[in-house]
Amino acid sequence: MAPRRIILDCDPGVDDALAMLLAFAAPEAVKVEAITTVIGNVMLPQTTANALRILDLAGRTEIPVHAGCPRPIMAPIERKKSVHGGDGLGDIGLPAPTGRAEAEHAVDAIIRLVRENPGEITLCPIGPMTNVAMALIKAPDIAPLIPEIVFMGGAAFRPGNSTPAAEFNFMIDPHAAQVMLTAGVTLTMFGLDVTAQALITPDWMADVEAAGGPITRAAIAMLRAYGHGDPCLHDPCVIAHFIDPSLFQGVDAWVEVETTSPLARGQSIAAVAERHRAGRAPNAHVITGLDTARLFALLREKLLSLD
Amino acid sequence: MAPRRIILDCDPGVDDALAMLLAFAAPEAVKVEAITTVIGNVMLPQTTANALRILDLAGRTEIPVHAGCPRPIMAPIERKKSVHGGDGLGDIGLPAPTGRAEAEHAVDAIIRLVRENPGEITLCPIGPMTNVAMALIKAPDIAPLIPEIVFMGGAAFRPGNSTPAAEFNFMIDPHAAQVMLTAGVTLTMFGLDVTAQALITPDWMADVEAAGGPITRAAIAMLRAYGHGDPCLHDPCVIAHFIDPSLFQGVDAWVEVETTSPLARGQSIAAVAERHRAGRAPNAHVITGLDTARLFALLREKLLSLD
Amino acid sequence: MAPRRIILDCDPGVDDALAMLLAFAAPEAVKVEAITTVIGNVMLPQTTANALRILDLAGRTEIPVHAGCPRPIMAPIERKKSVHGGDGLGDIGLPAPTGRAEAEHAVDAIIRLVRENPGEITLCPIGPMTNVAMALIKAPDIAPLIPEIVFMGGAAFRPGNSTPAAEFNFMIDPHAAQVMLTAGVTLTMFGLDVTAQALITPDWMADVEAAGGPITRAAIAMLRAYGHGDPCLHDPCVIAHFIDPSLFQGVDAWVEVETTSPLARGQSIAAVAERHRAGRAPNAHVITGLDTARLFALLREKLLSLD
Amino acid sequence: MAPRRIILDCDPGVDDALAMLLAFAAPEAVKVEAITTVIGNVMLPQTTANALRILDLAGRTEIPVHAGCPRPIMAPIERKKSVHGGDGLGDIGLPAPTGRAEAEHAVDAIIRLVRENPGEITLCPIGPMTNVAMALIKAPDIAPLIPEIVFMGGAAFRPGNSTPAAEFNFMIDPHAAQVMLTAGVTLTMFGLDVTAQALITPDWMADVEAAGGPITRAAIAMLRAYGHGDPCLHDPCVIAHFIDPSLFQGVDAWVEVETTSPLARGQSIAAVAERHRAGRAPNAHVITGLDTARLFALLREKLLSLD
Repeated sequence: MAPRRIILDCDPGVDDALAMLLAFAAPEAVKVEAITTVIGNVMLPQTTANALRILDLAGRTEIPVHAGCPRPIMAPIERKKSVHGGDGLGDIGLPAPTGRAEAEHAVDAIIRLVRENPGEITLCPIGPMTNVAMALIKAPDIAPLIPEIVFMGGAAFRPGNSTPAAEFNFMIDPHAAQVMLTAGVTLTMFGLDVTAQALITPDWMADVEAAGGPITRAAIAMLRAYGHGDPCLHDPCVIAHFIDPSLFQGVDAWVEVETTSPLARGQSIAAVAERHRAGRAPNAHVITGLDTARLFALLREKLLSLD
Repeated sequence: MAPRRIILDCDPGVDDALAMLLAFAAPEAVKVEAITTVIGNVMLPQTTANALRILDLAGRTEIPVHAGCPRPIMAPIERKKSVHGGDGLGDIGLPAPTGRAEAEHAVDAIIRLVRENPGEITLCPIGPMTNVAMALIKAPDIAPLIPEIVFMGGAAFRPGNSTPAAEFNFMIDPHAAQVMLTAGVTLTMFGLDVTAQALITPDWMADVEAAGGPITRAAIAMLRAYGHGDPCLHDPCVIAHFIDPSLFQGVDAWVEVETTSPLARGQSIAAVAERHRAGRAPNAHVITGLDTARLFALLREKLLSLD
Repeated sequence: MAPRRIILDCDPGVDDALAMLLAFAAPEAVKVEAITTVIGNVMLPQTTANALRILDLAGRTEIPVHAGCPRPIMAPIERKKSVHGGDGLGDIGLPAPTGRAEAEHAVDAIIRLVRENPGEITLCPIGPMTNVAMALIKAPDIAPLIPEIVFMGGAAFRPGNSTPAAEFNFMIDPHAAQVMLTAGVTLTMFGLDVTAQALITPDWMADVEAAGGPITRAAIAMLRAYGHGDPCLHDPCVIAHFIDPSLFQGVDAWVEVETTSPLARGQSIAAVAERHRAGRAPNAHVITGLDTARLFALLREKLLSLD
Repeated sequence: MAPRRIILDCDPGVDDALAMLLAFAAPEAVKVEAITTVIGNVMLPQTTANALRILDLAGRTEIPVHAGCPRPIMAPIERKKSVHGGDGLGDIGLPAPTGRAEAEHAVDAIIRLVRENPGEITLCPIGPMTNVAMALIKAPDIAPLIPEIVFMGGAAFRPGNSTPAAEFNFMIDPHAAQVMLTAGVTLTMFGLDVTAQALITPDWMADVEAAGGPITRAAIAMLRAYGHGDPCLHDPCVIAHFIDPSLFQGVDAWVEVETTSPLARGQSIAAVAERHRAGRAPNAHVITGLDTARLFALLREKLLSLD
């Protein structure tokens, strides 16, 4: 089977960086057509610089990076601090990027690549969904040309992490998430339901670090600085799913996100039972189960292959 | 220790009936000062009749029953069907009640009993919280006189059952739940987090039925007609907690209920971590863990003791 | 025609006091069966005391006063300051009341009087609608026994005064207003649409004061201390309407109040056109027009008649 | 003074067409740099075609037309019928357009023109604000480069027309309106407060028609088919303001739009008084007054000048 052609829409972020590296390590499964960046874990100039820095680290500077939206749909935000370190990549001393972002805006790159390759380009937003939503509002004609959106966001059946109600990506731009969820595109959701099971351990890090070369060691260094001692590999799950779908199980549901209530802002509402869906067919396959041991074995193998 | 003096505010309902029977079987732990009824599982005249019928069944007709609010705070509802059978008690042929409800409204009985016994009367709403909320609005002076409200309602850390967002009691009257949660009274919450673990099994029912007399057999007959083959003993958990608190574990949290969004209506929002509570002290002890085997052993023993 | 038998549900408040005096001056048109008080312009103990003080002033201490709800439905409030002076009656030195409020709660007095006099008792809430709403929630059976609710509240076709969106009474307890509006009772609404036209002038006050005795002079003294130099006689419009309906004109509309949005909280939404009512019949007659000169002539005449 | 350089962002629409014609008739006051189209009065392909048809009618085909967003931000809509006739221009038989829209999307044209002419390009959205909002989300750096946004939308101090709460443009895309209102750009608002005063009369139409040539007659024919016999010239007010500001008066206010409540969706909330603005400086000059006679005299003169 040919590798899946994807646009990785991200806000690096340590776990975004790991997702990038994992994708680069699995060319048989994933072909990254473009990286698009968005505000999220840190501000846009930093997420864009970070994407370029990871391309430098991995030696993949031929992949175009397109900077996207510097704010969520409804209001600008000022991020004060991050669990990803001051530079969003754990402050491990990665050098400034050698490359530059393309002139084309991320929203336009998404629209163009989807139109040029109808039915071919899977969108993988692993940050706030602003860029994807903006593309769907600006050019709704692309919706039927997108075979699937596989995203990290939400918490279908459990509490959030940014607030009791909401996961971080859905919290930052709930309106964008709702636009994506209701666009009629086939959706696969990696929310906290599954990604919170991808909890990295000190033993695994020590083991991988000992075995690896410079790329692996940089990855582990970032992970050590990440997540307040509770680091979950949220974003890499999306990529791992392309490499080995058998790692994951899920259920079909009708998923929406709360956009109106200050209290419940960003909450995922997932209706599995038919009586809860009010006759609507499910709009998403919600991943809930994970073979954690096999995921980390896969990550180890793939990371080491990069060095 | 003296038994806990409680007002059982309920909407029987099969599991309400079981909660009543369990309370009657544990006079060493619980003294039911009054039963107050509310719209919920069925309409108010039926919940009131059902409370009286269970008193007849248990031979406890000296306990006063006060009918309460026939509608939730914000809008009347028309219940179409119930998982509790057409009569709310499984249609097992319980006779019409021999007694009558008191002339005094449930809201006023709550206010009067609390004022007459300051610091003595624990409120136990196991249906929609309309009566308790109305008492707190009509007479806020009772709040500091209530030692504790122990309630069945909400779903702090998991999806609901009435909707993906909301548990039944919180869904029926979210405004009442919010009034109760923000009244400044000590709260213990038995939501779906714990009560969904109290899943009754055919084997347990067969075993108890075989050992029991007429009251037990009526209780089991009701349970067989209840819950679409998935019967959880939500309400009895509240009473079991007075008999043996060691059956349960929980966490402290700041809990609110969503009242504004059509999508998330009735959703519990429970903030455990200090950063999620925005500096507020927890307002509730949220029960999350249950020793299911011991609970059902207790229920068996207590039910059999009634015959 | 026999005088209209009313319950005046109020939060005195200077304009409430004027409404009381006007009612007392028009026994041919209005018979005040009871005065019920609510939190609003000032806290409940003060509104209750103020009602009693006005009864003393007018020599009408035979009218029972029932204290009602000390808080709105959804949350307690702490009033900081009022446009009605520190004591709610302009701090003009009215003596402490000689009488006392009845033991019966306002909510129960409303329910009892309506039930005892089916079809006879018009409710006139001129403060926040908490008491009326609570009565309708506690005992919905009274709704068809109430011939009409004539209320001061809302702003159907113009901005509010408490906020750009909301009039004071609707702002203080929007949930109560919504319960009242949707109870199925015949409604006549005196909102800011009309009451803002009842703007009192220094000339009128001087003229009336010069002609009047002690009651009139007290009334004018209160008015001088009221309303930040922009005193509208909101509440007396309700009473004036019973005395001379020809002073007012209005339109039929479907009226609701916004309860969910922080921004629009308490906003009146009034649908006049059939296409805006979504097929619903109007639920209220919304007064919009006023013959201001004749209203003030009536007020003058009636006030002077009290001395 | 040099003419104001504007982008006219519109959804023609009969009154949009009149606004275009008025702008073309006043080159001393307005220079239309581009016309951008949006979904609104009719669907996007039709509003785009209509803009081109009016350029044909006026002989101004050198002005570029850029098609914009075919849906509002939060959800697609299906317009059923319009007060602007089946083709959005009164079905008066205007021929199909001879020209074509530019390849560049309206959102990108707005961003480009603003960046290329910093401080020079006034945005004039007279339809739903989707294009303007999308430009501000995609490229927030343009905000300080925009000297002013002069828009038709909202109803600051009176009811709406689409619903009791909301004016049409704000109702169609309240989220876009809110993004525009909170972008920090100098705003002048022409809402129903003023535009409902621009009520066209049969006499005026007859008079202008009799005096005019083919363009004028087409304009009047469109107006006769418009507005259910109640035709207000909403959009031309924006252009008239550039020609003769002395026609209008207004007040400064903090304006927002309700985006969360189903009942109040699209409602303008305008805080004039300082106590209502919570310390915020006004964000908009809200036009409230109009010299109607002089406006229609200006329109007559300018329309006739086109023939």
